[in-house]
Amino acid sequence: MSKILRIDMSDLSHKWEAVPKEYEILAGRAFTSAVVNKEVEPMSHPLRENNMFVISPGLLAGTPAPSSGRLSVGAKSPLTGGIKEANAGGLTADRLARIGIRGIIIDGAPSRGSKDWYSIVVRKDNCEIVKTNNYADKGLYELIGKIWKDYPVKPGIIGCGIAGQRLMKCAGVFGNNPENTDPGRYAGRGGLGAVLGSKRIVAIISDSTGGEIPTPKDKERFDRGRKALREALDKHPVTGKLTSDDGKPFGGLKNYGTNILQNILNEAGGLPSMGFSSGRFDGAAKISGEAVHELVDKTKKKFGDAAEASYAHACHPGCVMRCSNAVPYEKTGKLHVSPLEYESAWALGTNLGIGVLHDVAELNRLCNDLGLDTIEAGNTLAMLMEGGLIKYGDGPGAIKALKEAYSTDSALGRLVCSGTQTAGEALGVTRIPVVKGQALPAYDPRPIRGIGVTYATTTMGADHTAGYTIAAEILGIKGTVTDPRALNKAELSRAFQATTAYIDATGYCLFIAFCILDDDDGFKGMTDSVNGFLGKDIDVTEYGMAILKNERAFNKNAGFTEKDDRLPEFFRTEPLPPHNVTFDVTDAELDAVFKGM
Amino acid sequence: MSKILRIDMSDLSHKWEAVPKEYEILAGRAFTSAVVNKEVEPMSHPLRENNMFVISPGLLAGTPAPSSGRLSVGAKSPLTGGIKEANAGGLTADRLARIGIRGIIIDGAPSRGSKDWYSIVVRKDNCEIVKTNNYADKGLYELIGKIWKDYPVKPGIIGCGIAGQRLMKCAGVFGNNPENTDPGRYAGRGGLGAVLGSKRIVAIISDSTGGEIPTPKDKERFDRGRKALREALDKHPVTGKLTSDDGKPFGGLKNYGTNILQNILNEAGGLPSMGFSSGRFDGAAKISGEAVHELVDKTKKKFGDAAEASYAHACHPGCVMRCSNAVPYEKTGKLHVSPLEYESAWALGTNLGIGVLHDVAELNRLCNDLGLDTIEAGNTLAMLMEGGLIKYGDGPGAIKALKEAYSTDSALGRLVCSGTQTAGEALGVTRIPVVKGQALPAYDPRPIRGIGVTYATTTMGADHTAGYTIAAEILGIKGTVTDPRALNKAELSRAFQATTAYIDATGYCLFIAFCILDDDDGFKGMTDSVNGFLGKDIDVTEYGMAILKNERAFNKNAGFTEKDDRLPEFFRTEPLPPHNVTFDVTDAELDAVFKGM
Repeated sequence: MSKILRIDMSDLSHKWEAVPKEYEILAGRAFTSAVVNKEVEPMSHPLRENNMFVISPGLLAGTPAPSSGRLSVGAKSPLTGGIKEANAGGLTADRLARIGIRGIIIDGAPSRGSKDWYSIVVRKDNCEIVKTNNYADKGLYELIGKIWKDYPVKPGIIGCGIAGQRLMKCAGVFGNNPENTDPGRYAGRGGLGAVLGSKRIVAIISDSTGGEIPTPKDKERFDRGRKALREALDKHPVTGKLTSDDGKPFGGLKNYGTNILQNILNEAGGLPSMGFSSGRFDGAAKISGEAVHELVDKTKKKFGDAAEASYAHACHPGCVMRCSNAVPYEKTGKLHVSPLEYESAWALGTNLGIGVLHDVAELNRLCNDLGLDTIEAGNTLAMLMEGGLIKYGDGPGAIKALKEAYSTDSALGRLVCSGTQTAGEALGVTRIPVVKGQALPAYDPRPIRGIGVTYATTTMGADHTAGYTIAAEILGIKGTVTDPRALNKAELSRAFQATTAYIDATGYCLFIAFCILDDDDGFKGMTDSVNGFLGKDIDVTEYGMAILKNERAFNKNAGFTEKDDRLPEFFRTEPLPPHNVTFDVTDAELDAVFKGM
Repeated sequence: MSKILRIDMSDLSHKWEAVPKEYEILAGRAFTSAVVNKEVEPMSHPLRENNMFVISPGLLAGTPAPSSGRLSVGAKSPLTGGIKEANAGGLTADRLARIGIRGIIIDGAPSRGSKDWYSIVVRKDNCEIVKTNNYADKGLYELIGKIWKDYPVKPGIIGCGIAGQRLMKCAGVFGNNPENTDPGRYAGRGGLGAVLGSKRIVAIISDSTGGEIPTPKDKERFDRGRKALREALDKHPVTGKLTSDDGKPFGGLKNYGTNILQNILNEAGGLPSMGFSSGRFDGAAKISGEAVHELVDKTKKKFGDAAEASYAHACHPGCVMRCSNAVPYEKTGKLHVSPLEYESAWALGTNLGIGVLHDVAELNRLCNDLGLDTIEAGNTLAMLMEGGLIKYGDGPGAIKALKEAYSTDSALGRLVCSGTQTAGEALGVTRIPVVKGQALPAYDPRPIRGIGVTYATTTMGADHTAGYTIAAEILGIKGTVTDPRALNKAELSRAFQATTAYIDATGYCLFIAFCILDDDDGFKGMTDSVNGFLGKDIDVTEYGMAILKNERAFNKNAGFTEKDDRLPEFFRTEPLPPHNVTFDVTDAELDAVFKGM
C-alpha cells in the first residue's frame, strides 16, 4: 500500500502521492488520526469546507491474516467537535488494499449552494469524480443495488444516506455487505456520514480489478503469526468454531453474534434500559442473540436453503469469526435485517423498553436504509421518549417517528436524526447520556466502572470500542474477573485504550481481543503477523499510545479540557437499580488515565 | 438592603441572612455573579438541582436616582453552560429594594417526577412558598392579570412562562410592566427562565407594602450626583426630553425607542438580515422606530386618549429615559405589543426577512406570552428558515411555527424554543450565529469589529449589552467615531465590558452610557450617586473588572478556554454585503482582551 489519493471537492480535482516517511508504518486509525491531527484546522466547522474526510484500510487488509479487513474513516466529528475514527467491515478495505492505496484524503467542498451530488470511483491508478444526482435522496438498500448494477465488479462501497446528505449528526458511514446489497456495515459513530454529505459525496466506490494481494516484508514471520492467531481464534469459546467436535454449539459469536451480551449484561444488572433508568430489562431475552439463533434455526427448518437467515456470516472477506447474523421473518423466510448487533438491539430495543424482536429489527432496517448510526439513533429516540413525544415501550410509535426522517420538511424527522444531545436539549431533557456529545453504548457505567472511565476519557466521546474493559469486568481474562464495582480503573482503561488503538490500525477486528487476552500464543500471533508484514518490530502499547497522543493533541487544540472527560451529572446522582449504585469514580482517577499526556 | 433570602426548593424551606462582609458593596450583577461563582458547582447541570437562581436589585434600586431600577438575575446558563447575568426593568427591583432585600438565592429542586408548581411571595420580613398549579401552563398575559388580581397591591412579578416550564433554552425571565399586566420586561438572555422552570417556580411575587426608600450613606453627595446625572440625561440627544424648547422631536430614545437603530444600522451596512447573510434589509424602514412613531401618532390622532399607543413610557419606576413604546393596531387603537425593541424587531423581523410591522409585533407578542427571549427565538426561527422548514420572509409561516410552541407534543414547537444552536444543529445548518451557544444580536461583527470582539470574549455568550462598542463605532463618543473596520479593538471592548459590569451592578440602565460617555458631568453624577449611596469611593473599572474576574473564573472551572472566545467560522469565511468584509480580528487580539485574567 504505497499510495495516497488526495481529492479536493472544491474543484473536483485529485492527485496521487507516495506515502511519506512519517506515515510509513501508519494505517487504519493510526493513519486517519495522524492526518486529521496534522492537516485539519482544529477549530474548523466539521460540516464546512475546512474539514477533511480520511479513509484508510487497516495495515493487514487484503492479506490472508484472519479477520483483518477493517476500514477506518476519520475526520473532525460533527457530533463531538473532536477527532473521530470509526471503523467497519465490508469490502472497501480489501479493495483499496489490493490496489495499493494506504489512504484517501478528501478536502474542500463544492461552493455553498451547489445542488449536485458526486461519487468517487477509485480504480488501480485511476480516480474519477462523477456527478451522480441519481444516487442522492435514496434509501440505501436501493442505492447499493443500483451501484452494483452500474459497476458490476462487486466494488466496495462506502458513503452516506439521506441522514448524511442532510448533515444530520446521527449519520454514519455505510459500507456494503460482502455478499449482498445490504447497507449493513457501518462505521457508525461520530456523525461522519454528515461529513461526506457536507462534501456532497454520496458514495465512494472501490474497484480492485487488476489489483493484487499485499506482500509482507517478512513473509515467514507474517505467515507464522497469522496461522497462530487463526488457531487461537478457532479454539477460543468466544471466537471459536460453530460447533465443537461433538456437534454442540461452541463459538459464542458464531452462534449468537455480539447479541450474546444481551442476557449476560441483564444478568449483571448493567444493561441500561428505558433511557438509562434501570440496569435490567424484562424483555431482554426476547431480543437476545439466543432468540435470533432460535428464529434462524426455525426458519431454516421451514424454508431450507431459501431461508434468508443466518447467525454466522462474515462482515468482510477473510473473517474467521463470522459474528454477523441475518434476521428473517419467520412467516416468509425472507430477510428482515442483517446484522442485528448487540449495540443495535440494545439501543433500538432495551433502551427504549421495546422487547419485540421485529420492532427492533424494523428500527434497525430503517437506520440502515437512512444511513444512521444505530447507537446514536436509538439514544436519540430515547430522548424523544424521555421528552414525552413517544412513550417508552412503544415500538410502532418509534418506527413511525423514524420514518418521518424520509420527509424533507418534518421537524420530528430532523430531530430523530439530530443526535442524542441535540434532541435531548431540544426537548428539555436533563438526563442526556452523552460524553463529548456522543451517546453512551450498551453498558451502564454505574455498576461497571471501568467502562465508565473509558467513556469519559477516550478521545472519541462515549465509545465502548475505544477501551472495552467489559472483557475484564464482565467476561473475565484468563479466568479472572476484575471487580466491576472497583473504582481504580485508570490503568485498566488506559491499557485497553492503547491496545485498541493498535488493533484499530492493523485492520484486525477488535473481537480478536477476547482471544489474544486469554491466549499468549494468540497475542504473539497477532504481533508476529503485524511485525512480519512491516518487516520491523513495533511495540503494541507504544504504537497505540502514539495514536492516542495525536488524538488528544487535536482535541486539546479544538478546545477540549479535562472537564470534557466527565460523565453527565445524573450518573453521579441517580442510583441505578438493581444494584442501586452511582458512578463514584473520582475526577482525579479519570484524569489519571492520561496524566501528563 | 441588608438581607439575603435563601430558599431551598428541595424541601420548600427558606431562611434570612444578613449580607456578609464580602458582599457588602455588591448588588445587581456584582452580587449574582459573586454568588454563582462562589456557590454553584461549575460542572453541575444547569437544569438540575445543583444549579442556583440568584436575584438582586441594582444598588440604587428604589432610590430617586434616575433610571436606576434594574433587576439582575443570575445562574449557570442552560444556553451557554457558563455563568449568566441578565437584567431588566419592571417593578421587582424597586419592590425588593424597598423591603431591604439585597438578594434572593434559590437552591435545589423538588424531587424528580414532582408535578407541582410553586410561586414565591416575598414581603417585608416574610416569605411564603405557595403551591400554584393554577399558574402553570398559561400564557403570560393571562397569568400576570391573574396574579395582580390575587395580590392586589401591584407587586413586582418575575417568573417563567410555558417555555421555561418545559425547560426550553430560549426561555427568558419575564417581568411585569409598571402600569399594566403585560409581560414585556425580559431578563431575556441565557435561558434563565428554564432554570426557574427546573426549580418548578412559575412566579416570584414581590410586595413592598410597609417598605421604605433606601437611605444613602452620604445623602448630600448622592443627591448631588443623581441630580447632575439627571440633568446630563435630559439634555443629551439620545436620552433627552421628548421635544426641544421649540417643540421639535428631540430625545432619540423617547421618540423612536431603541428601534431608532434599525435605519442607522441599515445605513451603516451592519444590519444582519436573512440569517446574517446581508448587512442591509429592504424592509428595515417599515419596522423601524420611525415607523412605530408614525403609527402611534396616527392612532392617537384617531382615537385620542383611548389609543393604547405610546413611544415614551418607562419600563421601571423612576426611569427618565422612557424608551419603551406600545405598538397599537391602527384600525382599533388597541395595543398589539409593548415594547417592540430594536433587538426584537431585528430578530423577529430583519433577520427573518420579514418587513411587515404587525407580523413582527405578533411574533414579539407570542414571545412575551410564551416566555421567550426575542433575540434567541428570532435567531432560532432563522435556523428553521436556513434549514428549509420555513421560507425567509414568510411572516405568517413564522407565526404559525411559533404558535406550535403552546402544544405539548409538537416537535416543531419544541424546536422553535430550543435555541439557535440546538435548532440549527438539529436541522444541519452550518451558519449558526452563536458564541458559547448564545445567539448574536443585531449588529454584524464583520463590518463592525469591536462588537465582534465583545461577542467573542464576554463571559455571557454573544451579547451586545456586555460591551456596547457600537456607541463608539457607529454613534460616536464626544463627536468622534472609532473606525468600525479597524482591527485593534481589544482595549475598546475591555473598557466597555468593565464599565458595563459596573453599571449592571448599580441598577442604572445601560442606556445612561450614551450620556456619561459624552458628558463628563454626567459621568461624575453617576459615580457621585453610587459613591454617595455607599459612603465610600469605588473605582468604576476596578469594580467592573472584579465582576468579570468572578465570571471568568466560573467559566474556566466549567471547562471554557480561549477557544470558546471565538466567532463561528462562517464570519471569517463568508464576506458580508454591502461592504463585503469578513471578521478579520486575529485570535491574538481576541485573547488580548482579558490577557492574564
